[in-house]
Amino acid sequence: MILRLRIGTPSEVVSELRALIEGQGLRTFLSPEPARPIVAIVDHAPADLVDQLAARPEVEQAVVPRGEWRLVDRAFREGPTSVNVGAVCVGAGESVVIAGPCSVEGRDLILEGARICRDAGAHILRGGAFKPRTSPYAFQGLGREGLTQLKDAGESVGLPVISEIMDATQVSAFKECDIDCLQVGARNMQNFTLLKAIAAAGRPVLLKRGLSATVAEWLAAAEYLAAHGSEQIILCERGIRTFETATRNTLDLTVLPLLRQWTHLPILVDPSHAAGIPELVAPLSRAAIAAGADGVAVEVHPRPDQARSDGAQALLPGELTRVVAECRVVGAVLGRAFHAQPQPKRAAALAP
Amino acid sequence: MILRLRIGTPSEVVSELRALIEGQGLRTFLSPEPARPIVAIVDHAPADLVDQLAARPEVEQAVVPRGEWRLVDRAFREGPTSVNVGAVCVGAGESVVIAGPCSVEGRDLILEGARICRDAGAHILRGGAFKPRTSPYAFQGLGREGLTQLKDAGESVGLPVISEIMDATQVSAFKECDIDCLQVGARNMQNFTLLKAIAAAGRPVLLKRGLSATVAEWLAAAEYLAAHGSEQIILCERGIRTFETATRNTLDLTVLPLLRQWTHLPILVDPSHAAGIPELVAPLSRAAIAAGADGVAVEVHPRPDQARSDGAQALLPGELTRVVAECRVVGAVLGRAFHAQPQPKRAAALAP
Amino acid sequence: MILRLRIGTPSEVVSELRALIEGQGLRTFLSPEPARPIVAIVDHAPADLVDQLAARPEVEQAVVPRGEWRLVDRAFREGPTSVNVGAVCVGAGESVVIAGPCSVEGRDLILEGARICRDAGAHILRGGAFKPRTSPYAFQGLGREGLTQLKDAGESVGLPVISEIMDATQVSAFKECDIDCLQVGARNMQNFTLLKAIAAAGRPVLLKRGLSATVAEWLAAAEYLAAHGSEQIILCERGIRTFETATRNTLDLTVLPLLRQWTHLPILVDPSHAAGIPELVAPLSRAAIAAGADGVAVEVHPRPDQARSDGAQALLPGELTRVVAECRVVGAVLGRAFHAQPQPKRAAALAP
Amino acid sequence: MILRLRIGTPSEVVSELRALIEGQGLRTFLSPEPARPIVAIVDHAPADLVDQLAARPEVEQAVVPRGEWRLVDRAFREGPTSVNVGAVCVGAGESVVIAGPCSVEGRDLILEGARICRDAGAHILRGGAFKPRTSPYAFQGLGREGLTQLKDAGESVGLPVISEIMDATQVSAFKECDIDCLQVGARNMQNFTLLKAIAAAGRPVLLKRGLSATVAEWLAAAEYLAAHGSEQIILCERGIRTFETATRNTLDLTVLPLLRQWTHLPILVDPSHAAGIPELVAPLSRAAIAAGADGVAVEVHPRPDQARSDGAQALLPGELTRVVAECRVVGAVLGRAFHAQPQPKRAAALAP
Repeated sequence: MILRLRIGTPSEVVSELRALIEGQGLRTFLSPEPARPIVAIVDHAPADLVDQLAARPEVEQAVVPRGEWRLVDRAFREGPTSVNVGAVCVGAGESVVIAGPCSVEGRDLILEGARICRDAGAHILRGGAFKPRTSPYAFQGLGREGLTQLKDAGESVGLPVISEIMDATQVSAFKECDIDCLQVGARNMQNFTLLKAIAAAGRPVLLKRGLSATVAEWLAAAEYLAAHGSEQIILCERGIRTFETATRNTLDLTVLPLLRQWTHLPILVDPSHAAGIPELVAPLSRAAIAAGADGVAVEVHPRPDQARSDGAQALLPGELTRVVAECRVVGAVLGRAFHAQPQPKRAAALAP
Repeated sequence: MILRLRIGTPSEVVSELRALIEGQGLRTFLSPEPARPIVAIVDHAPADLVDQLAARPEVEQAVVPRGEWRLVDRAFREGPTSVNVGAVCVGAGESVVIAGPCSVEGRDLILEGARICRDAGAHILRGGAFKPRTSPYAFQGLGREGLTQLKDAGESVGLPVISEIMDATQVSAFKECDIDCLQVGARNMQNFTLLKAIAAAGRPVLLKRGLSATVAEWLAAAEYLAAHGSEQIILCERGIRTFETATRNTLDLTVLPLLRQWTHLPILVDPSHAAGIPELVAPLSRAAIAAGADGVAVEVHPRPDQARSDGAQALLPGELTRVVAECRVVGAVLGRAFHAQPQPKRAAALAP
Repeated sequence: MILRLRIGTPSEVVSELRALIEGQGLRTFLSPEPARPIVAIVDHAPADLVDQLAARPEVEQAVVPRGEWRLVDRAFREGPTSVNVGAVCVGAGESVVIAGPCSVEGRDLILEGARICRDAGAHILRGGAFKPRTSPYAFQGLGREGLTQLKDAGESVGLPVISEIMDATQVSAFKECDIDCLQVGARNMQNFTLLKAIAAAGRPVLLKRGLSATVAEWLAAAEYLAAHGSEQIILCERGIRTFETATRNTLDLTVLPLLRQWTHLPILVDPSHAAGIPELVAPLSRAAIAAGADGVAVEVHPRPDQARSDGAQALLPGELTRVVAECRVVGAVLGRAFHAQPQPKRAAALAP
Repeated sequence: MILRLRIGTPSEVVSELRALIEGQGLRTFLSPEPARPIVAIVDHAPADLVDQLAARPEVEQAVVPRGEWRLVDRAFREGPTSVNVGAVCVGAGESVVIAGPCSVEGRDLILEGARICRDAGAHILRGGAFKPRTSPYAFQGLGREGLTQLKDAGESVGLPVISEIMDATQVSAFKECDIDCLQVGARNMQNFTLLKAIAAAGRPVLLKRGLSATVAEWLAAAEYLAAHGSEQIILCERGIRTFETATRNTLDLTVLPLLRQWTHLPILVDPSHAAGIPELVAPLSRAAIAAGADGVAVEVHPRPDQARSDGAQALLPGELTRVVAECRVVGAVLGRAFHAQPQPKRAAALAP
């Protein structure tokens, strides 16, 4: 349950309220929201306490989240949040494009890829160093050396970098190599040990949706990050697994406007992994922005047929330029009005 | 297998070619395409015949469809086709909006709905008279009387009308009431008896995708219509059934750009049934157009809480106005460049 | 809502009760159950009426079905029901095996198939005369001639016959050919016009589950049959569509014991269409019986490689013999104890 | 590609053959199979090498696995393998029952649970110490203390124990506490870092299928374990995620007989997590054994309503007794004939 207090409520009153609640054995969190004090009660509050709290004069609204999350709920902030990845702000209005090869495959190749991304107008460089591959015999990535090459390439073209982290023991490598954003892949969305370790790292995190994760499970995974200290979380829809086999996955844009009502976190869309077919990436990128995404993450490769992983879905350099341009146009035309979400409707004192 | 002959091939040569093929016991169809003679071979052609045909001087390209369809394949036409529903052309560039209540509920209500649609700028009026309801005890629609009321309402505001047909025996009623377009619902996509009967009716058909139909099954269903004489087929994506329960269905925009490569038929998107939540309809409509749809079909009701079916997902009149405006803007900005599809890549003489 | 009255309640009291309820504008049905009067209220009953009815002395239990069905609910009968198909009783304890080729392909072949079925100990002969095929160019069945051949073959070996009906207009042919059981295929599970027409035919019906139909939708479809007069309904699970592609579908035995709690109807399982691989049919048949099925429906063909449809999943004659034997053994060993279901737990007066 | 050599081929010839293959830059594995030398080639072998190898006199059969695995393929062993968990042999013919509470909740409770399991005739005691919970605020398990309590309880009743491991850093705790079998949960099936760490631990592993993992992905995950040194792998089907919401998941018994053809590993079934409803566990356990499972894993709790996790699906002690008895009966009656699998059919030299 989330208690949205009146603007200007003195901090002593807030502290008193938290003390009252915690005296009942219930854990609370205070929102970092500057404009308004907001208190989340983590544990189940008994009905009479809910009534009592909702009736207090400093409580303007008592909101019940739709699921097992509190800190990432839309009501825990006044407006949507944004996350800084290097100098790039995700969620602030501009359509952000993350681009790069599936894997870092060598110093020259990643540098070539980085230049392609910069020239096309992309904002963040991606590249995998630790690769979760279905087969144990497939290329597993360059590891820490890949992180170094990625960061160097990013610096040489002036782009922040993002890379996938697969295990808690890799956190120090990501910090030492100064990777600007840690990506949690679809297979690890519910790797809770990893989520806790990353939250402690103090870096922006991009949390991909699991292949068959419901929105409720996805937000609960984001809550793991938030509850363990992370305030820089970006969600990324990358296609769900369905019966359809003509495409690699099914991009679920249906939940995008729903997420805008349920959470304050910024949301990106990865059409490359969803479609698995490069010709589909441009139209799906446009659609993602039109549906309200804060940007897209796409794969590009100078010579897709030589890529060591996922080459079949990589864009060519010229196609990336088109994606960046179209995302910008669609975002601009729509004025990104979808960002100005109203407060949640399901207010009032309901049982949590 | 589809044989695209050289432009200008004399009709005697075409006839000769077909006679040669049919002499082998294989059925053929000739495309109504004016610009170029195109011949589809329905049955499996043996490999040596394929080679022999592909080598003939009048054959420019021998294309193998990706599945069990011929006449609806992209290669069976030079460009995308368009379908006239009354005076409205679906597939010709403009973003078409079909709107109206889920069910026709009475003369006054449908007239009120028709005015809302016209005032909002929608192009075609929808309304169900025969309703496929999960429960036998639920409102089953007004039947033939509903068709009359729908048509009268459409005429009074100058909009063509569309309504769902559930059974072959209803075809005459739809013709007598002069319903401009017959809708085949998701549950009937593979009701092959119905498809054959409708094809013979000589009216435009809107073929919704089944809840768990693959793209390949959907196009094969369209082929039923085409093979039995229909040349006015519109596809309509309306959400597929997945594990996600936060939304009614999952709108599958991933297949939209794929369909542009696989078929020449126009494609609409129904975000109302996909989402089941009115707040999601506007962003998903924008996304559909951005992904390349020829338009959208949405539900609207003057007083959704009083609707006899599916009121929970109906737009309010003002929301419809926004949907129409945004579809127009997104369509215009993108110049609908996605329409200028290249010829299929998988050309050359391959075994069908 | 279902009112289970005390055993021995006089019929005048029952009539009075129904009159009282119908006086409130609510439709009712009286169970054909001989042992106990049971009244189903079709429409939504207001809470105070529910309380009032549940408090009446003749009402022993007021049960709320889990979904939009009444007559097929477990509580609408004292025990499970059985259905006679010719002289074969489905649901009476013995494990029934339906077997035969996918399609009737000619007089000699179906007779050969019938003999294989009889010799293997199968109970009912199956064979399709009207075939719902994905492609319009595929073999569509022999039609009415196929029904005649099937019936003749069944009579010559002394087995009742079952065949799929695809359209309301075919009902008279099925009756004239004296087909013992009408099968509604997965694609037609929600073809409500067809369901109504079949219900009026007065013959046993086998209702297959739709490819992506929930249990709730399946029972609601059965309720269509029941509400329109059919009392001889058999359910048939035949695999649902999932993400897994190694098998044709995923056989959902999970819902089998659930259905035993939710409905009184007998339930068969079709492992042939679920698996699509003949080697899987025997183990899945055993599993189906072990999970509580009343029998199985399998495909068999004297020469599968020459079958005109679905040959790839047909059993060989010897394999059918094994399936019949194993179903008998598993059924016997388990004593089919799963049949002695207790009354539904969710009794008491709850709002419907 | 898997080369099955003739029985009695001298080890020098085997070494020579491997040297020849590795000289081409291809990695090989030698089967621990005592009866016959079998060599797996991990990497893609060019077609001419395949032909050359298949033609060698010592090669009896060259088998191409259906997917990206080698060591777990059926052809890499003469017969099915079995795995010893403490003194219990999984895969040797007897139907093994793993039972216990979802979580270890305290010394007295787990001891009480252990006694229930022993008295019911179960073979292995389960209990979670590290719990992957959807919500960060839910009970996360007792951790290492839970492992100690579980092992002590197991020893006091004479049962080996199994518990879920969530992270590579926990391996030492599992070894120090002498946990007899390490369980990889559904969410971690593709946590490749974890799989590698566990493989190195030298203990039996139970690998649960991921919620939306295909059979091919599941076997590839098992191959990770095998390729990194584990020879004691048990598969466990626990229900997949589908559109059906009446049950927690859908138990996929369809793939069970398929797995018997594809792999030599033993397979258990967890009906508790699949169904999520205790009444369904007994019939699904019977069905699992009938379909060919080597046993089942079920949850039991002395007082399910007081359980700290998943109490709603736990069996009562008496129900567990029934499950054990029925599994034994079904297994005995069927003589577990399904174990005597023939050699794979897809032999001969095919391109890998």
